[in-house]
This record gives sequence, C-alpha cells and structure tokens, in this order.
Amino acid sequence: MIESPAAFIGVNDEGIISFGSGQPDLEPPKEIFENLNIPKLLKYGLIKGEPKLREALAKEYPAANFEEFVVTNGASEALDLTLRAIYKLHGPSQILICRPYYYSYPPLVELAGHTPIYTDLINGQIDLDDFTSKLGQAKAVIINSPSNPTGRVEKIETLRQIEKITAEQGTYVISDEVYKDLIYGRENYLIQGDHVITVNSFSKTYSMCGLRVGYLYTADKELLDTVVDIKTHTSMNTNVVAQQMALQATSVPKVIINQQTKIWEERRDFIYNGLKALGFDLWQPEGAFYVLPKIKNSNQVVSELYEQHNVIVYDGAWFGAPNRIRLSYALDVSKIEEGLKRIEEYLKDKKDWLS
Amino acid sequence: MIESPAAFIGVNDEGIISFGSGQPDLEPPKEIFENLNIPKLLKYGLIKGEPKLREALAKEYPAANFEEFVVTNGASEALDLTLRAIYKLHGPSQILICRPYYYSYPPLVELAGHTPIYTDLINGQIDLDDFTSKLGQAKAVIINSPSNPTGRVEKIETLRQIEKITAEQGTYVISDEVYKDLIYGRENYLIQGDHVITVNSFSKTYSMCGLRVGYLYTADKELLDTVVDIKTHTSMNTNVVAQQMALQATSVPKVIINQQTKIWEERRDFIYNGLKALGFDLWQPEGAFYVLPKIKNSNQVVSELYEQHNVIVYDGAWFGAPNRIRLSYALDVSKIEEGLKRIEEYLKDKKDWLS
Repeated sequence: MIESPAAFIGVNDEGIISFGSGQPDLEPPKEIFENLNIPKLLKYGLIKGEPKLREALAKEYPAANFEEFVVTNGASEALDLTLRAIYKLHGPSQILICRPYYYSYPPLVELAGHTPIYTDLINGQIDLDDFTSKLGQAKAVIINSPSNPTGRVEKIETLRQIEKITAEQGTYVISDEVYKDLIYGRENYLIQGDHVITVNSFSKTYSMCGLRVGYLYTADKELLDTVVDIKTHTSMNTNVVAQQMALQATSVPKVIINQQTKIWEERRDFIYNGLKALGFDLWQPEGAFYVLPKIKNSNQVVSELYEQHNVIVYDGAWFGAPNRIRLSYALDVSKIEEGLKRIEEYLKDKKDWLS
Repeated sequence: MIESPAAFIGVNDEGIISFGSGQPDLEPPKEIFENLNIPKLLKYGLIKGEPKLREALAKEYPAANFEEFVVTNGASEALDLTLRAIYKLHGPSQILICRPYYYSYPPLVELAGHTPIYTDLINGQIDLDDFTSKLGQAKAVIINSPSNPTGRVEKIETLRQIEKITAEQGTYVISDEVYKDLIYGRENYLIQGDHVITVNSFSKTYSMCGLRVGYLYTADKELLDTVVDIKTHTSMNTNVVAQQMALQATSVPKVIINQQTKIWEERRDFIYNGLKALGFDLWQPEGAFYVLPKIKNSNQVVSELYEQHNVIVYDGAWFGAPNRIRLSYALDVSKIEEGLKRIEEYLKDKKDWLS
C-alpha cells in the first residue's frame, strides 16, 4: 500500500510517465534570471519581505497596501503561519475544509493545534447549504478555487455568498488562490474583505516551485502582526535572492502568462477527451492542471500502474476522494498520450472498475 | 519602551552604529556564486534537501550518513521542526533552556505547544548541579555553545557530562551549534549520541544570512522522519538555488574560515578592552560575536542610545539577562571605535549604572 504522495517525491527515472507532481514543466520566463546581483542579496531582510516586492504585489490587489503582505516560503508556509496565528489569537478551533481537499490541509490544521471539519463538495462544487450549516462551528474556512485536486472553479455567485456569510459571522476565510492564473473559462474572482487571508504563490504561474516564494495578504492587522511575530522566530525572512526573482517575475508581460494558459487548455482538452474515450467518469477541469476521474480500487491502481506500467498517478483518497485518482497534466501532450496508452493497456481487463 | 529586537530589524540609516543584529559584515566567499546555473535549480526538490549537499555535510560529522540530515530554512526552521516533531511524538513537554538564551528559544518552545523551564547560567556557564536537578522534568534540553548572547563556550568536560546524563535519562539534546566555526580558544566540541539533534547554519560562517540555509542532523530516525513529514506540509523543500550555494560553500578552503576567525578575534579584543576601559563588567567572549556587559536600566539605555546617540544595542532582558545589554561586534573596528565613543559620551554622568 502506497500511503501518500511522499512515496513519489524525487522519483524521476527514465521511462516513467508521471501524472503525479504539480510541478509545471514549462520554461520559466527569462525575466526572472536577468541581471541578478546575488552578492548584494545575502543579508538578512525584513521578516515581512522586501518592500519592492510587496509594493509590486500590492498593485495586483484593489486598494491593497504593501504593509498588508508577508512573503513566505511558498504558499505552504503562508497557510501554516495563518493557522498558527489563529491558534495564538483564538486557541484551538475548528477549521472548515471543502472535501476533496489539497492533501496538506488536514495535517496543517492539526499541526497548528486545530481540528478539521469537512463539507463535502457536490460534483466538485461547494454545497452552500451544507457549508452554511457547518460555518457556525468554524473559526476559519479554507477555500481553494481553482481547486487542487478537482480542477474545478467555484461560481462567482457562490464565492460572493461565502464572502458575505463569513463576514456576517466573523469567520476567517483563508483563500488559497495559487492557481488563480491557471483558469480557462473566466478571470479569477478575488474573495475580498477584512476577514480574508489571501494565500498565493509564484510557483505555478512562473514555473519556479523550487524557489519556494509565496505570500499572504490580509487587511486584518492583528492577524498579520501575529503572523510576522511567529515568522520572526520560525524562519525569519524568506530567501532574499528568491524574492528578487519573484520581483522580476511581477514584470513578466501578461501576454506570456496568457500564452501559457493556451498550452494548459490544449493539454486539458487532450487528457479530458482521452480519459473520456477510455470510459472514465470525470469533471472537465476549469482551472489548475488536475483531473480527478473515478475508479474503483484506487490504491491498487496507483501501485499497479507504477509497478507494472511505469505510470505515476495519485490516489484520490489522499485528497479525501476515495475511488478516484488524481492526474496532473503538467507534462507534454506526447507524454500524456503515452501515459494514456499505458493506462488503457492496464485497464483492458478492468472495464468494470470505471462504472 | 522598546520591546524586542524586531524594533530594529531593517533599520539601516546612515550615521547609525549598530551593535544590534547578528549579521556578519564580512564578504561572503566568492566560491558560493561561481557558475550557478539558476534555470536548472527551479524545480521542486526532495523535502530533506539536495542529496549532494547532504553528502557534503555528512563528511563533516563522524560516522554520519547523508540520510540523517534535513536542510532547512535557516537554523530557525530546524529548531521549529524539531520542537514540533517532539510535540507530535510525545505531546506537550517541558523543554530545558539555559538562561541567558537566544531570544527565539522561549517563543519557539511555546509555539510548538511546550513549556520552557530554565536553568540559570553562572558567569555564562552551565551549572551542572542545577542543570541535572531540572533534567528529570524535561523531554529535551537546548544547548547553545558558543552562545548567543553570552559569547561564552562551555567546557568540554561539561559537554561530555551533559552528553552522558541526557543519554542515561533519554532526554533529547537540541544542540544549536550555529557558531561552531566562530570559536577562538579551541575547536568546537560536537555533542554526540543517538538522542542528539545538531542544528547548524551556513549564515554566520559564510555571511549568507539572507539565504536562510540551515540544517539539522540526527541519528534518531523516528524524530527525523517526523521532521520530514511536518516539513512536507509546512514549507516543502528548502530553496534549491540556496542549497546549491550552500553546497559550493562546503568547498570553501578552511584557511579562509580561519582568516575570518582572526578578524573576529581582533574585533573581540577591541570591544572587550574598550568596554573594560569604560568601566563595564563583562565576560571575555570565547566564541560567536557578542558581548553582554552589565548595566542598570538597560531598556532605558537601549532607547536613549538609539534616540540620542544613533547607537543600536539590544536589551539583555530580551535574552533573559536583565540589567545587561547585548552588543554584536559584527562590524568594522573603526565603527566599533566610533560606537564606543558615543557610549562613553552617553555614560559620562551615569558611571554608577555600571556597578
């Protein structure tokens, strides 16, 4: 039994087709490397992050001030610091998570001393009735649209409703928008309000995952100050060289990002149609680069596809979605094609697993 | 009232003499910048860190294996992860801290869900009787030799005793050795044993604080696996570019590090003799780059030196040492000289504060 994605981290052998990691394979934009003066970027920086980077970020958010941002070691640290700050301010709390979820959410909630509670998505979309019925118990909710692992995007009307009812109830919204630039049908909807903590990252948009630059943005000064106070002790400033590269990323022309989205859309169509043709039941992705098709015996599928066919997929159970598998399509169409062939071969005597 | 070092982080105005931050001003060795192929260093890496860096580190520790290392966002994250792992394995515990202490120790212990308990140093040295009497309550002890803020180094005999009694009692030793290369009288003594977690950093030795590369090393596999499991969710891999620079730092000739130690020794002598001449009562530093002289009304001293004389010093109270101030001598002798002149001017009607 393979128990978590950790089993596949760093597995990179020749011949393997990996639908595992959420690592974009696209070339990072050249702007991020230009004229880096590394010897000038080696001293301690401000805990919040370099002011120029925060000023550039503030321009991307309506009415934001650069002092409302904290640059972090990826979105992961932004989530961790936010949850720890909520613990410091309010003690152990219940945190509402939409299921299926990004697999780090439950452990992050627990590591910070809280308890996760869940609302189950219906067809990958928030069920506002169930969401609302659980909101009263929760100190915070985590929203992730576009979603990893579902690939779905919440309706703007749903996000507006969530904005409103959480504001009324005084519930924090932790809005993980790391896929906001990877959205096909429409522009991203930014969840707003004084009770919102927006979490974002440079990893996916600019193919710079290994640099670990993310950030959080909130107008809640008490929470922000608590985050900074915690980070002062737990990691200090985020790597200054990486912050400079992130600053340079903010001036990459929007047209380049849009071109990338076209590539993602082609791949999305290719894998969606390919899986449909194989008989899979799945949602058409609206954002991010994941599909989450149904299949019985999903953990056995993960093991056997890896061991017998050199294909990595992740068990939906790791994301709170048993009897599904997650495939990342952050790879070339020719590799997707080869991977689908191998899956077809594996499934030839297991057609009933798809129903 | 100035409440913490955070008040001075990023203060860098012309004309200020800062004895505040522990940021070495020496030039980083040129080896760390050479032939960096940044475009190849942008993908997710292993949570534990790049194998080549861990292999280089393993060579610096007797009988160590590269799988026993985790590369972290500075020593800060190594301490945080270790304390969180102890919580995950053993629940809320008491953690023994030697006082005066590095100012992040108590908040790190509390953030991880533990309670700090203290043993008071006598003349900056561990009092083995008191230490031993408190050991029974503690799940872990934090040792920091050479010490920030005292500048003192524990006797080898004391460290051997601690190694022995903690092993007997099954108490973890978290040995923060970030100043191991900044030691004047003798070589560093590495505390060893299966119950030891050695915490180290590239920041001080190689003047690369802003890159945030540290690591932990332990032969305790259960603890190590728990650390990796936590880091998978809280920050993922440490910045891969910075890890490459750290790898290149490991091949900096030892003679360069030794030359730096000579510079530190000159500065140490200059500030120690200068403060003595002004009438201060202080320990002669044996390692790191801090002095911790006695002075009454230390918080008032911190405020007034800053506001009236453009000199930054830190309040000893922030390190558990009231009625002392901490001065970092990580700055040029000419600046130390100017700073001492300003302190002399400030003290001219306050001689009785030194007794």
